[in-house]
Amino acid sequence: MASSIVSKKAKVHRSVKIGEFCRIHDNVVLEQDCIVEDYTTLGYPSALGDGSPLVIRRDSLIRSYALFYEGSEFGSRLITGHRVTVREMTKAGKNLQIGTLCDIQGHCTIGESVRLHSNVHIAQGSRIGDFCWLFPFVVLTNDPHPPSDGYREGCRIEKFAVLSTSACILPGVVIGEGALVAAGALVSRDVQAGRIAVGNPARDVGPAGDILLRDGRGKPAYPWRRHFRRGYPEEIVETWLREFEDEK
Amino acid sequence: MASSIVSKKAKVHRSVKIGEFCRIHDNVVLEQDCIVEDYTTLGYPSALGDGSPLVIRRDSLIRSYALFYEGSEFGSRLITGHRVTVREMTKAGKNLQIGTLCDIQGHCTIGESVRLHSNVHIAQGSRIGDFCWLFPFVVLTNDPHPPSDGYREGCRIEKFAVLSTSACILPGVVIGEGALVAAGALVSRDVQAGRIAVGNPARDVGPAGDILLRDGRGKPAYPWRRHFRRGYPEEIVETWLREFEDEK
Amino acid sequence: MASSIVSKKAKVHRSVKIGEFCRIHDNVVLEQDCIVEDYTTLGYPSALGDGSPLVIRRDSLIRSYALFYEGSEFGSRLITGHRVTVREMTKAGKNLQIGTLCDIQGHCTIGESVRLHSNVHIAQGSRIGDFCWLFPFVVLTNDPHPPSDGYREGCRIEKFAVLSTSACILPGVVIGEGALVAAGALVSRDVQAGRIAVGNPARDVGPAGDILLRDGRGKPAYPWRRHFRRGYPEEIVETWLREFEDEK
Repeated sequence: MASSIVSKKAKVHRSVKIGEFCRIHDNVVLEQDCIVEDYTTLGYPSALGDGSPLVIRRDSLIRSYALFYEGSEFGSRLITGHRVTVREMTKAGKNLQIGTLCDIQGHCTIGESVRLHSNVHIAQGSRIGDFCWLFPFVVLTNDPHPPSDGYREGCRIEKFAVLSTSACILPGVVIGEGALVAAGALVSRDVQAGRIAVGNPARDVGPAGDILLRDGRGKPAYPWRRHFRRGYPEEIVETWLREFEDEK
Repeated sequence: MASSIVSKKAKVHRSVKIGEFCRIHDNVVLEQDCIVEDYTTLGYPSALGDGSPLVIRRDSLIRSYALFYEGSEFGSRLITGHRVTVREMTKAGKNLQIGTLCDIQGHCTIGESVRLHSNVHIAQGSRIGDFCWLFPFVVLTNDPHPPSDGYREGCRIEKFAVLSTSACILPGVVIGEGALVAAGALVSRDVQAGRIAVGNPARDVGPAGDILLRDGRGKPAYPWRRHFRRGYPEEIVETWLREFEDEK
Repeated sequence: MASSIVSKKAKVHRSVKIGEFCRIHDNVVLEQDCIVEDYTTLGYPSALGDGSPLVIRRDSLIRSYALFYEGSEFGSRLITGHRVTVREMTKAGKNLQIGTLCDIQGHCTIGESVRLHSNVHIAQGSRIGDFCWLFPFVVLTNDPHPPSDGYREGCRIEKFAVLSTSACILPGVVIGEGALVAAGALVSRDVQAGRIAVGNPARDVGPAGDILLRDGRGKPAYPWRRHFRRGYPEEIVETWLREFEDEK
């Protein structure tokens, strides 16, 4: 990190590893065992924050070319791809993954163990529940009649929901728990829990549980936590195992 | 800016502030009171230019990780997001805003006070009028039968037009003054002034003036300059105030 | 390159030019006459590789802010735009062009003289044949029921195929030789060789050869190699010239 510029005012735990060509500004808290890779900016000063620091909790990995504003706070074990941009006043739970080129516009609420794949765009004021998945080029919007001012309708994505590649969610739309939005869908109305929305404009085409895994076992693909558990904390996975045992 | 590399041939006004890890090449004019943030490249040499410099006029703010080629010229008070890429031979009016991750391919004409939100892609030869809005992931294309050569049809976006999130405008299409292209629309035909285009493929669904503000006041949302004036120069806002006073 | 950090273990030919603020890791082979521009990372260590190096063959140009993982290999004359991200275990033929902001997720096979325009997203396990074109914001996906594990269906794009702007190709879809996918198409079924797919969901609307060049000559626009040959190696162009001479 000889080439990096680290403010003496930043609160950086001594176990933190910082790469080359980084810029760590004043208003930053980096907890123990974090890794910050090359060309990363942390604590970018923002006139739109409230003066609170950027907080990155323990065991996080910030990959190269990332940019985080001051005033946002993440739970432990945050993992990012490259070139992510995260603005001020976002609060996220632990175990979040943010993919390469994601653009989080700030003032958002994000639950635990959320997964954002590459190039996801999250408008200000969005709310994303625990265990949601947003795939590449998903966009959450917030302005019902752009451009306008003083009136915003952030989307709400409820827990376990899956937004497939290039889905676009219009302002104020609620995606219900465990719902599946298909690739390329333009969603202008709420999607009920456990349902599938397809098309431009999107319509309800049935329950997500009707989709079968294509691996030959013929089991339902949704709820996905029946079969997909990679990367989740052990205590969560145990809950899911019990949930579907009980069903039998 | 101890870590930045600034060519002695670049014409940088002494009031300009340059961040860390920047690369300012020879063929650059930076007027007074500009701010250039970290990791920015200005005046990237281009074989496709005409030898003219990159010109950034007074009071501009270039946010971090930006890249501007030589041979483009911007009016005063340019403001960019992060990671913008702007190639050669583009001419833009004053008060332009270019959002994070925008990709302007060069040889474009952009009017005054245009707003490009995040991740907008502008093909070569596009023409954008004054006061237009292009929201995230909007794409302007230019090749009617890709790949081809020697024949390009840039789009023309006329003043006050609004292109909503993820709209894709096909080659040679003209979006008329004050028209509204809905989110996710694929526009293959011209959109008349003041009309709304919706869908894939897009069709005309009526006048933009039929859309009402959802803030409870029941007033029309378009033309948006009736109610939205944040960030525009005072002299422009006064014109708009008079325009709608006269209507009453 | 005074500011760059180049590992002594990297195999860098003495003719290679390296820009400023670069980071060249250990596991890299850079052949003769390559140019590596500013802020580029080569050989980023990956736990998902097989220990093989990043190999960039002769006469390649890596534009600024690029990031290549170790374990991928490219033929000679690779040219990239800016801010490209390429992960591990991808093998590509010579004369590849990768546009600005492309995101290649690794474990892909890419033929000769392929052209990726800006912001193309290539999922793991994709296979792209020789002379294909992928235009801005094209996405290749691979998970038929996201999220899932251990079962992936990469797309296969056969030679000379053209995927227009913002096309989204669903998992396991095969795009036949010389087929044309229209802008904004969501392709859920295979597209036969030489056919056009249009819409969301995409349907076959006829042979690509029915589209005429709009330059007034009234000749067919496809196969595009009848009229478009810019940037291809001379020996390839001669083959194409002979191919269409024989037809007459």
